[in-house]
Amino acid sequence: MELKVYGHRASQPSRAIMIFCKANGIEFEEVTVDISKGENRSPEFKEINPMGQVPAIIHGELKLFESHAILIYLASAFPGVADHWYPTDLVKRAKVHSVLDWHHSNLRRGSATYVFYSRLAPVFGLPLNPQAAAEDEKILISSLSIIESYWLQDSGLFLLGENQPSIADLSLVCEIMQLELLDENDRNRFLEPHKKIQQWIENTKNAIKPYFEELHDVLYQLSATLRKK
Amino acid sequence: MELKVYGHRASQPSRAIMIFCKANGIEFEEVTVDISKGENRSPEFKEINPMGQVPAIIHGELKLFESHAILIYLASAFPGVADHWYPTDLVKRAKVHSVLDWHHSNLRRGSATYVFYSRLAPVFGLPLNPQAAAEDEKILISSLSIIESYWLQDSGLFLLGENQPSIADLSLVCEIMQLELLDENDRNRFLEPHKKIQQWIENTKNAIKPYFEELHDVLYQLSATLRKK
Repeated sequence: MELKVYGHRASQPSRAIMIFCKANGIEFEEVTVDISKGENRSPEFKEINPMGQVPAIIHGELKLFESHAILIYLASAFPGVADHWYPTDLVKRAKVHSVLDWHHSNLRRGSATYVFYSRLAPVFGLPLNPQAAAEDEKILISSLSIIESYWLQDSGLFLLGENQPSIADLSLVCEIMQLELLDENDRNRFLEPHKKIQQWIENTKNAIKPYFEELHDVLYQLSATLRKK
Repeated sequence: MELKVYGHRASQPSRAIMIFCKANGIEFEEVTVDISKGENRSPEFKEINPMGQVPAIIHGELKLFESHAILIYLASAFPGVADHWYPTDLVKRAKVHSVLDWHHSNLRRGSATYVFYSRLAPVFGLPLNPQAAAEDEKILISSLSIIESYWLQDSGLFLLGENQPSIADLSLVCEIMQLELLDENDRNRFLEPHKKIQQWIENTKNAIKPYFEELHDVLYQLSATLRKK
């Protein structure tokens, strides 16, 4: 059964899906939906995801959106995905769900909107919005602090004290990587206070070689373009 | 193994957990955390949920927060929970996850914050904030419209065209019930355009008799108090 992944490599949840597939030997057709050109709002794409957001997948009869739901589905439906990505142990699985749910209203909300309003909006033909960015900045700072002091509190290379990554590590690290789009000083201001987060990002890159960096190349290019301007 | 549910019946995700337990014959000790008195920020409660939010559970060694993660854990860990609550079929399960993930940044975000800033803030000693409420109102209106036209588009009594409720129905309907705290005209303004949503709320109440109404009694009382003021 063919798997199609609709996304854009500049989108953090799109990258998480594609990295997951590559790291687990799941073959897929990558269909680029250029969000900077509004392709996500086309009638064709809205047949796949009526919400007009990337990523989305088609697998057989199933059309699915929301990146966490997709990661869980892929980890469950494809044989050969190592257990650490989405543990079968109910207690470990519950904690992965807890991180992923927390992510929605915290790191995702703060980071994605801060990056958009303080930096990315003009790429989409919209003005910057310092007032909105200031609100989101508070959520971002608080979220990073909680990751450093709580989710990474146990010894272990990854979230929840684990020594192998789960889909939660992948989702959250891809989100934090989006800060590459900021001015370098601005990015450093957020990450420099957090030594555990910095180490965890490195651990994630190392654990998912070479796919992690391969899928982030588009982001690094976009970052370089924005920093030149 | 004893289950303790820490929550407050005026909190929509707390009610969802308690209704789920009662509807499935899961015995638990209800520990009321009075959020209007700030008990959720006490050092004792932060030992259970460092984020200082209800609901949270303790089950044996496990401390867990985030209501969706809790619902999934309970549906998986307790034998005898009917399959429709959290389907084992991977495609059906994926769609339940998709609704739950969508909920975080849409209905939950719009509804909870609109109700708070337009009505509930003084209960917590804070001022109303019409400007924030106006932003949240847009998200609430858009979310209700998507539920009516997309998540309830198929025939069937519940979300995704199903004839029995899932944890997604329970979570989202408990959220919408929070609109009871608004002035009656304001509540009706949101719900009257949406006939399918109105019917779905009734279907959910009927499917989870008498627990749904029993657990909403505190909300109805708070609503009456606020409307008298």
